[in-house]
Amino acid sequence: MEERMSLIVFSGTVDKLMAASILTTGAAAMGMEVEVFLTTWGLEAFRKDAYKTNQRVSKEFEDFAPVMMEQMQVKQVPSWMDNFKDARDIGAVKIYACSMTMELFGIKLADLEPIVDDVTGVATFVERARAGRITLFI
Amino acid sequence: MEERMSLIVFSGTVDKLMAASILTTGAAAMGMEVEVFLTTWGLEAFRKDAYKTNQRVSKEFEDFAPVMMEQMQVKQVPSWMDNFKDARDIGAVKIYACSMTMELFGIKLADLEPIVDDVTGVATFVERARAGRITLFI
Amino acid sequence: MEERMSLIVFSGTVDKLMAASILTTGAAAMGMEVEVFLTTWGLEAFRKDAYKTNQRVSKEFEDFAPVMMEQMQVKQVPSWMDNFKDARDIGAVKIYACSMTMELFGIKLADLEPIVDDVTGVATFVERARAGRITLFI
Repeated sequence: MEERMSLIVFSGTVDKLMAASILTTGAAAMGMEVEVFLTTWGLEAFRKDAYKTNQRVSKEFEDFAPVMMEQMQVKQVPSWMDNFKDARDIGAVKIYACSMTMELFGIKLADLEPIVDDVTGVATFVERARAGRITLFI
Repeated sequence: MEERMSLIVFSGTVDKLMAASILTTGAAAMGMEVEVFLTTWGLEAFRKDAYKTNQRVSKEFEDFAPVMMEQMQVKQVPSWMDNFKDARDIGAVKIYACSMTMELFGIKLADLEPIVDDVTGVATFVERARAGRITLFI
Repeated sequence: MEERMSLIVFSGTVDKLMAASILTTGAAAMGMEVEVFLTTWGLEAFRKDAYKTNQRVSKEFEDFAPVMMEQMQVKQVPSWMDNFKDARDIGAVKIYACSMTMELFGIKLADLEPIVDDVTGVATFVERARAGRITLFI
Protein backbone atom coordinates (compact mmCIF):
# COMPACT_ATOMS: atom_id res chain seq x y z
CA MET A 1 0.00 0.00 0.00
CA GLU A 2 1.37 3.38 -0.96
CA GLU A 3 1.35 6.51 1.20
CA ARG A 4 -0.88 8.43 -1.14
CA MET A 5 -4.02 10.55 -0.90
CA SER A 6 -6.04 10.91 -4.11
CA LEU A 7 -8.58 13.68 -4.50
CA ILE A 8 -11.24 13.86 -7.16
CA VAL A 9 -12.01 17.57 -7.27
CA PHE A 10 -15.40 17.74 -8.96
CA SER A 11 -16.70 20.96 -7.43
CA GLY A 12 -15.40 24.40 -8.32
CA THR A 13 -16.74 26.48 -5.44
CA VAL A 14 -14.27 28.49 -3.37
CA ASP A 15 -15.28 26.77 -0.11
CA LYS A 16 -14.72 23.24 -1.47
CA LEU A 17 -11.52 24.21 -3.29
CA MET A 18 -10.31 25.65 0.00
CA ALA A 19 -11.07 22.33 1.74
CA ALA A 20 -9.32 20.38 -1.04
CA SER A 21 -6.25 22.60 -0.88
CA ILE A 22 -6.00 22.38 2.90
CA LEU A 23 -6.33 18.59 2.82
CA THR A 24 -3.57 18.57 0.20
CA THR A 25 -1.31 20.71 2.38
CA GLY A 26 -2.08 18.58 5.44
CA ALA A 27 -1.35 15.30 3.67
CA ALA A 28 1.83 16.66 2.09
CA ALA A 29 2.96 17.83 5.54
CA MET A 30 2.42 14.24 6.79
CA GLY A 31 4.75 12.99 4.05
CA MET A 32 2.02 11.60 1.80
CA GLU A 33 1.99 11.87 -1.96
CA VAL A 34 -1.09 13.70 -3.21
CA GLU A 35 -2.75 13.24 -6.57
CA VAL A 36 -5.49 15.67 -7.51
CA PHE A 37 -7.82 14.78 -10.38
CA LEU A 38 -9.72 17.81 -11.69
CA THR A 39 -13.04 17.03 -13.30
CA THR A 40 -16.17 18.90 -14.41
CA TRP A 41 -16.52 22.17 -12.39
CA GLY A 42 -13.28 21.50 -10.56
CA LEU A 43 -11.50 21.66 -13.90
CA GLU A 44 -13.33 24.86 -14.89
CA ALA A 45 -11.93 26.43 -11.71
CA PHE A 46 -8.39 25.82 -12.98
CA ARG A 47 -8.87 27.65 -16.28
CA LYS A 48 -6.26 30.39 -16.61
CA ASP A 49 -7.03 33.32 -14.30
CA ALA A 50 -10.43 31.89 -13.30
CA TYR A 51 -9.38 31.69 -9.64
CA LYS A 52 -8.89 35.46 -9.54
CA THR A 53 -12.59 36.16 -10.01
CA ASN A 54 -14.24 32.92 -8.83
CA GLN A 55 -16.64 33.80 -5.99
CA ARG A 56 -18.86 30.72 -6.17
CA VAL A 57 -19.81 29.23 -2.80
CA SER A 58 -22.04 26.25 -1.92
CA LYS A 59 -25.58 27.54 -2.59
CA GLU A 60 -26.98 26.25 0.69
CA PHE A 61 -24.65 28.52 2.66
CA GLU A 62 -24.51 31.58 0.46
CA ASP A 63 -25.81 33.72 3.31
CA PHE A 64 -22.56 32.96 5.20
CA ALA A 65 -20.36 33.75 2.19
CA PRO A 66 -19.87 37.49 2.77
CA VAL A 67 -18.68 36.88 6.36
CA MET A 68 -16.40 34.06 5.21
CA MET A 69 -14.88 36.10 2.39
CA GLU A 70 -14.40 39.11 4.71
CA GLN A 71 -12.77 37.02 7.45
CA MET A 72 -10.45 35.41 4.92
CA GLN A 73 -9.26 38.89 3.94
CA VAL A 74 -9.05 40.26 7.50
CA LYS A 75 -7.13 37.19 8.70
CA GLN A 76 -5.02 37.12 5.54
CA VAL A 77 -5.87 33.48 4.86
CA PRO A 78 -3.95 32.30 1.79
CA SER A 79 -6.15 31.54 -1.22
CA TRP A 80 -6.79 27.93 -2.24
CA MET A 81 -4.48 28.43 -5.21
CA ASP A 82 -1.70 29.58 -2.88
CA ASN A 83 -2.32 26.52 -0.70
CA PHE A 84 -1.88 24.21 -3.68
CA LYS A 85 1.33 26.03 -4.60
CA ASP A 86 2.61 25.77 -1.03
CA ALA A 87 1.73 22.07 -0.91
CA ARG A 88 3.99 21.46 -3.92
CA ASP A 89 6.89 23.05 -2.07
CA ILE A 90 6.32 20.79 0.91
CA GLY A 91 5.84 17.47 -0.81
CA ALA A 92 4.96 15.35 -3.82
CA VAL A 93 1.76 16.84 -5.22
CA LYS A 94 0.52 16.18 -8.74
CA ILE A 95 -2.48 17.86 -10.33
CA TYR A 96 -4.14 16.20 -13.31
CA ALA A 97 -6.92 17.34 -15.62
CA CYS A 98 -9.62 14.81 -16.57
CA SER A 99 -9.27 14.02 -20.28
CA MET A 100 -13.00 13.46 -20.72
CA THR A 101 -13.92 16.88 -19.30
CA MET A 102 -11.23 18.51 -21.49
CA GLU A 103 -12.81 16.97 -24.56
CA LEU A 104 -16.38 17.75 -23.52
CA PHE A 105 -15.68 21.42 -22.78
CA GLY A 106 -13.09 21.83 -25.54
CA ILE A 107 -10.29 22.75 -23.11
CA LYS A 108 -6.58 22.41 -23.92
CA LEU A 109 -3.75 22.08 -21.38
CA ALA A 110 -2.57 25.57 -22.42
CA ASP A 111 -5.94 26.97 -21.29
CA LEU A 112 -5.30 25.86 -17.71
CA GLU A 113 -3.27 27.33 -14.86
CA PRO A 114 0.40 26.23 -15.07
CA ILE A 115 0.01 24.36 -11.76
CA VAL A 116 -1.82 21.61 -13.68
CA ASP A 117 0.81 18.98 -14.52
CA ASP A 118 -0.86 16.95 -17.19
CA VAL A 119 -4.02 15.43 -18.64
CA THR A 120 -5.03 11.93 -17.62
CA GLY A 121 -7.93 9.49 -17.88
CA VAL A 122 -10.19 8.18 -15.16
CA ALA A 123 -8.91 4.61 -15.43
CA THR A 124 -5.29 5.72 -14.86
CA PHE A 125 -6.35 7.82 -11.90
CA VAL A 126 -8.33 4.93 -10.35
CA GLU A 127 -5.44 2.54 -10.99
CA ARG A 128 -3.16 4.69 -8.84
CA ALA A 129 -5.78 5.70 -6.28
CA ARG A 130 -6.55 2.10 -5.37
CA ALA A 131 -2.94 1.53 -4.35
CA GLY A 132 -3.12 4.50 -1.96
CA ARG A 133 -4.61 5.02 1.47
CA ILE A 134 -7.23 7.73 1.10
CA THR A 135 -9.40 8.65 -1.89
CA LEU A 136 -11.96 11.43 -1.63
CA PHE A 137 -14.60 12.89 -3.93
CA ILE A 138 -14.95 16.61 -3.29
CA MET B 1 -8.07 -6.51 0.97
CA GLU B 2 -10.47 -6.91 -1.92
CA GLU B 3 -10.24 -5.20 -5.31
CA ARG B 4 -13.42 -3.27 -4.85
CA MET B 5 -14.61 0.31 -5.25
CA SER B 6 -17.73 1.27 -3.29
CA LEU B 7 -19.72 4.35 -4.20
CA ILE B 8 -22.34 5.99 -2.04
CA VAL B 9 -24.42 7.88 -4.59
CA PHE B 10 -26.26 10.45 -2.50
CA SER B 11 -26.74 13.14 -5.13
CA GLY B 12 -29.14 12.86 -8.05
CA THR B 13 -27.88 15.62 -10.34
CA VAL B 14 -26.90 14.71 -13.88
CA ASP B 15 -23.36 16.02 -13.48
CA LYS B 16 -22.64 13.93 -10.36
CA LEU B 17 -24.38 10.85 -11.75
CA MET B 18 -22.20 11.24 -14.82
CA ALA B 19 -19.09 11.33 -12.62
CA ALA B 20 -20.29 8.29 -10.65
CA SER B 21 -21.00 6.32 -13.82
CA ILE B 22 -17.63 7.17 -15.37
CA LEU B 23 -15.79 6.17 -12.19
CA THR B 24 -17.75 2.92 -12.27
CA THR B 25 -16.76 2.26 -15.88
CA GLY B 26 -13.13 3.17 -15.15
CA ALA B 27 -12.89 0.89 -12.14
CA ALA B 28 -14.64 -1.98 -13.93
CA ALA B 29 -12.19 -1.57 -16.81
CA MET B 30 -9.33 -1.91 -14.30
CA GLY B 31 -10.80 -5.22 -13.14
CA MET B 32 -12.26 -3.92 -9.90
CA GLU B 33 -15.62 -4.95 -8.49
CA VAL B 34 -17.91 -1.96 -8.04
CA GLU B 35 -20.72 -1.63 -5.52
CA VAL B 36 -23.02 1.34 -5.83
CA PHE B 37 -25.23 2.27 -2.89
CA LEU B 38 -28.09 4.59 -3.89
CA THR B 39 -29.37 6.80 -1.12
CA THR B 40 -31.59 9.90 -0.76
CA TRP B 41 -31.56 11.90 -4.05
CA GLY B 42 -29.35 9.34 -5.72
CA LEU B 43 -32.12 6.80 -5.22
CA GLU B 44 -34.79 9.20 -6.51
CA ALA B 45 -32.74 9.42 -9.72
CA PHE B 46 -33.17 5.68 -10.25
CA ARG B 47 -36.97 5.72 -10.09
CA LYS B 48 -38.42 4.21 -13.25
CA ASP B 49 -38.03 6.56 -16.23
CA ALA B 50 -36.77 9.42 -14.04
CA TYR B 51 -33.43 9.51 -15.90
CA LYS B 52 -35.25 10.36 -19.13
CA THR B 53 -36.35 13.76 -17.85
CA ASN B 54 -33.85 14.52 -15.08
CA GLN B 55 -32.11 17.80 -15.92
CA ARG B 56 -30.89 18.71 -12.44
CA VAL B 57 -27.34 20.08 -12.30
CA SER B 58 -25.27 21.34 -9.34
CA LYS B 59 -26.84 24.72 -8.53
CA GLU B 60 -23.51 26.54 -8.29
CA PHE B 61 -22.78 25.79 -11.95
CA GLU B 62 -26.22 26.03 -13.48
CA ASP B 63 -25.00 28.76 -15.81
CA PHE B 64 -22.70 26.17 -17.45
CA ALA B 65 -25.46 23.57 -17.76
CA PRO B 66 -26.84 24.54 -21.18
CA VAL B 67 -23.36 24.36 -22.76
CA MET B 68 -22.66 21.04 -21.04
CA MET B 69 -25.98 19.52 -22.11
CA GLU B 70 -25.50 20.78 -25.68
CA GLN B 71 -21.93 19.45 -25.92
CA MET B 72 -23.04 16.08 -24.60
CA GLN B 73 -25.55 15.88 -27.44
CA VAL B 74 -23.20 17.21 -30.13
CA LYS B 75 -20.41 14.85 -29.09
CA GLN B 76 -22.86 11.98 -28.57
CA VAL B 77 -21.65 11.33 -25.05
CA PRO B 78 -23.48 8.29 -23.63
CA SER B 79 -25.87 9.11 -20.78
CA TRP B 80 -24.93 8.18 -17.21
CA MET B 81 -27.50 5.40 -17.35
CA ASP B 82 -25.85 3.98 -20.46
CA ASN B 83 -22.47 4.18 -18.72
CA PHE B 84 -23.78 2.12 -15.81
CA LYS B 85 -25.20 -0.42 -18.25
CA ASP B 86 -21.91 -0.58 -20.15
CA ALA B 87 -19.98 -0.98 -16.89
CA ARG B 88 -22.02 -4.11 -16.10
CA ASP B 89 -20.99 -5.61 -19.41
CA ILE B 90 -17.32 -4.96 -18.66
CA GLY B 91 -17.14 -6.17 -15.08
CA ALA B 92 -18.71 -7.00 -11.75
CA VAL B 93 -20.97 -4.06 -10.92
CA LYS B 94 -23.75 -4.22 -8.36
CA ILE B 95 -26.27 -1.47 -7.69
CA TYR B 96 -28.11 -1.43 -4.37
CA ALA B 97 -30.92 0.73 -3.05
CA CYS B 98 -30.69 2.02 0.52
CA SER B 99 -33.43 0.33 2.58
CA MET B 100 -33.87 3.35 4.84
CA THR B 101 -34.50 5.74 1.95
CA MET B 102 -36.95 3.21 0.42
CA GLU B 103 -38.92 3.20 3.62
CA LEU B 104 -38.78 6.96 4.14
CA PHE B 105 -39.96 7.78 0.62
CA GLY B 106 -42.28 4.75 0.33
CA ILE B 107 -40.42 3.30 -2.67
CA LYS B 108 -40.58 -0.38 -3.69
CA LEU B 109 -37.98 -2.25 -5.75
CA ALA B 110 -40.54 -2.45 -8.58
CA ASP B 111 -40.62 1.38 -8.69
CA LEU B 112 -36.93 1.50 -9.62
CA GLU B 113 -35.06 1.04 -12.88
CA PRO B 114 -34.33 -2.66 -13.54
CA ILE B 115 -30.58 -1.96 -13.31
CA VAL B 116 -30.99 -1.81 -9.51
CA ASP B 117 -30.09 -5.29 -8.22
CA ASP B 118 -31.50 -5.27 -4.75
CA VAL B 119 -32.24 -3.40 -1.54
CA THR B 120 -29.67 -3.35 1.25
CA GLY B 121 -28.92 -1.65 4.56
CA VAL B 122 -26.14 0.76 5.42
CA ALA B 123 -24.42 -1.66 7.79
CA THR B 124 -24.16 -4.35 5.10
CA PHE B 125 -22.80 -1.82 2.64
CA VAL B 126 -20.20 -0.54 5.11
CA GLU B 127 -19.24 -4.11 6.01
CA ARG B 128 -18.29 -4.80 2.40
CA ALA B 129 -16.88 -1.35 1.64
CA ARG B 130 -14.33 -1.58 4.44
CA ALA B 131 -12.82 -4.68 2.88
CA GLY B 132 -12.34 -2.83 -0.40
CA ARG B 133 -9.81 -0.29 -1.63
CA ILE B 134 -11.77 2.83 -2.48
CA THR B 135 -15.00 4.18 -0.97
CA LEU B 136 -16.44 7.48 -2.16
CA PHE B 137 -19.40 9.63 -1.17
CA ILE B 138 -20.80 11.39 -4.22
CA MET C 1 -4.64 -1.20 9.24
CA GLU C 2 -7.12 -0.03 11.83
CA GLU C 3 -10.86 -0.69 11.83
CA ARG C 4 -11.76 2.95 11.49
CA MET C 5 -14.06 5.07 9.35
CA SER C 6 -13.17 8.76 9.11
CA LEU C 7 -15.73 11.29 7.94
CA ILE C 8 -14.98 14.82 6.86
CA VAL C 9 -18.33 16.54 7.38
CA PHE C 10 -18.04 19.67 5.25
CA SER C 11 -21.72 20.21 4.46
CA GLY C 12 -24.28 21.38 6.98
CA THR C 13 -27.54 20.49 5.23
CA VAL C 14 -30.00 18.24 7.04
CA ASP C 15 -29.99 15.62 4.28
CA LYS C 16 -26.20 15.24 4.28
CA LEU C 17 -25.95 15.36 8.08
CA MET C 18 -28.57 12.60 8.13
CA ALA C 19 -26.43 10.53 5.75
CA ALA C 20 -23.31 11.17 7.84
CA SER C 21 -25.06 10.20 11.06
CA ILE C 22 -26.49 7.00 9.57
CA LEU C 23 -23.11 5.98 8.20
CA THR C 24 -21.68 6.63 11.66
CA THR C 25 -24.32 4.45 13.29
CA GLY C 26 -23.84 1.72 10.70
CA ALA C 27 -20.06 1.65 11.09
CA ALA C 28 -20.28 1.72 14.89
CA ALA C 29 -22.73 -1.20 14.72
CA MET C 30 -20.12 -3.11 12.67
CA GLY C 31 -17.58 -2.54 15.44
CA MET C 32 -15.62 0.17 13.67
CA GLU C 33 -14.21 3.24 15.34
CA VAL C 34 -15.59 6.42 13.78
CA GLU C 35 -13.87 9.79 13.66
CA VAL C 36 -15.89 12.75 12.47
CA PHE C 37 -14.07 15.92 11.43
CA LEU C 38 -16.38 18.93 11.29
CA THR C 39 -15.30 21.65 8.91
CA THR C 40 -16.78 24.77 7.29
CA TRP C 41 -20.61 24.44 7.10
CA GLY C 42 -20.51 21.11 8.87
CA LEU C 43 -19.03 22.89 11.87
CA GLU C 44 -21.63 25.68 11.69
CA ALA C 45 -24.29 22.97 11.99
CA PHE C 46 -22.85 21.94 15.38
CA ARG C 47 -23.09 25.40 16.92
CA LYS C 48 -25.14 25.24 20.10
CA ASP C 49 -28.87 24.78 19.36
CA ALA C 50 -28.34 25.26 15.61
CA TYR C 51 -29.66 21.75 14.86
CA LYS C 52 -33.02 22.68 16.36
CA THR C 53 -33.78 25.19 13.62
CA ASN C 54 -31.57 24.04 10.74
CA GLN C 55 -33.82 23.32 7.75
CA ARG C 56 -31.20 23.57 5.00
CA VAL C 57 -31.44 20.90 2.31
CA SER C 58 -29.38 20.36 -0.86
CA LYS C 59 -30.56 23.13 -3.19
CA GLU C 60 -30.99 20.83 -6.19
CA PHE C 61 -33.66 18.83 -4.35
CA GLU C 62 -35.41 21.53 -2.38
CA ASP C 63 -38.68 20.64 -4.06
CA PHE C 64 -38.54 17.23 -2.33
CA ALA C 65 -37.70 18.74 1.06
CA PRO C 66 -41.26 19.27 2.37
CA VAL C 67 -42.18 15.60 1.67
CA MET C 68 -38.95 14.40 3.24
CA MET C 69 -39.38 16.54 6.36
CA GLU C 70 -43.02 15.46 6.67
CA GLN C 71 -42.22 11.76 6.26
CA MET C 72 -39.45 12.02 8.85
CA GLN C 73 -42.01 13.36 11.32
CA VAL C 74 -44.78 10.89 10.39
CA LYS C 75 -42.38 7.92 10.57
CA GLN C 76 -40.73 9.32 13.71
CA VAL C 77 -37.28 9.07 12.20
CA PRO C 78 -34.67 10.13 14.79
CA SER C 79 -32.89 13.39 13.97
CA TRP C 80 -29.28 13.32 12.76
CA MET C 81 -28.22 14.66 16.16
CA ASP C 82 -29.98 11.77 17.88
CA ASN C 83 -28.27 9.34 15.50
CA PHE C 84 -24.86 10.70 16.45
CA LYS C 85 -25.77 10.39 20.13
CA ASP C 86 -26.98 6.82 19.63
CA ALA C 87 -23.83 5.95 17.72
CA ARG C 88 -21.74 6.97 20.73
CA ASP C 89 -23.69 4.56 22.90
CA ILE C 90 -23.04 1.72 20.46
CA GLY C 91 -19.34 2.23 19.80
CA ALA C 92 -16.23 4.36 19.71
CA VAL C 93 -17.25 7.60 18.01
CA LYS C 94 -15.25 10.80 18.26
CA ILE C 95 -16.33 14.16 16.90
CA TYR C 96 -13.70 16.82 16.26
CA ALA C 97 -13.97 20.45 15.21
CA CYS C 98 -11.55 21.75 12.56
CA SER C 99 -9.20 24.25 14.21
CA MET C 100 -8.86 26.31 11.05
CA THR C 101 -12.62 26.81 10.68
CA MET C 102 -12.86 27.70 14.40
CA GLU C 103 -10.29 30.42 13.90
CA LEU C 104 -11.78 31.70 10.65
CA PHE C 105 -15.31 31.97 12.03
CA GLY C 106 -14.23 32.96 15.54
CA ILE C 107 -15.85 29.91 17.16
CA LYS C 108 -14.84 28.54 20.56
CA LEU C 109 -15.39 24.97 21.80
CA ALA C 110 -17.94 26.33 24.29
CA ASP C 111 -20.01 27.64 21.35
CA LEU C 112 -20.52 24.11 20.05
CA GLU C 113 -22.89 21.30 21.01
CA PRO C 114 -21.46 19.22 23.87
CA ILE C 115 -21.28 16.17 21.58
CA VAL C 116 -18.16 17.73 20.02
CA ASP C 117 -15.18 16.16 21.82
CA ASP C 118 -12.36 18.45 20.94
CA VAL C 119 -10.66 20.71 18.40
CA THR C 120 -8.07 19.27 16.05
CA GLY C 121 -6.06 20.15 12.97
CA VAL C 122 -6.30 18.72 9.46
CA ALA C 123 -2.87 17.10 9.61
CA THR C 124 -3.75 15.16 12.77
CA PHE C 125 -7.02 14.05 11.24
CA VAL C 126 -5.32 12.88 8.03
CA GLU C 127 -2.62 11.11 10.04
CA ARG C 128 -5.27 8.95 11.71
CA ALA C 129 -7.55 8.61 8.68
CA ARG C 130 -4.81 7.10 6.56
CA ALA C 131 -4.39 4.25 9.03
CA GLY C 132 -8.09 3.43 8.76
CA ARG C 133 -10.22 1.66 6.17
CA ILE C 134 -12.73 4.20 4.92
CA THR C 135 -12.45 7.98 4.62
CA LEU C 136 -15.29 10.02 3.15
CA PHE C 137 -15.84 13.68 2.32
CA ILE C 138 -19.48 14.59 2.86
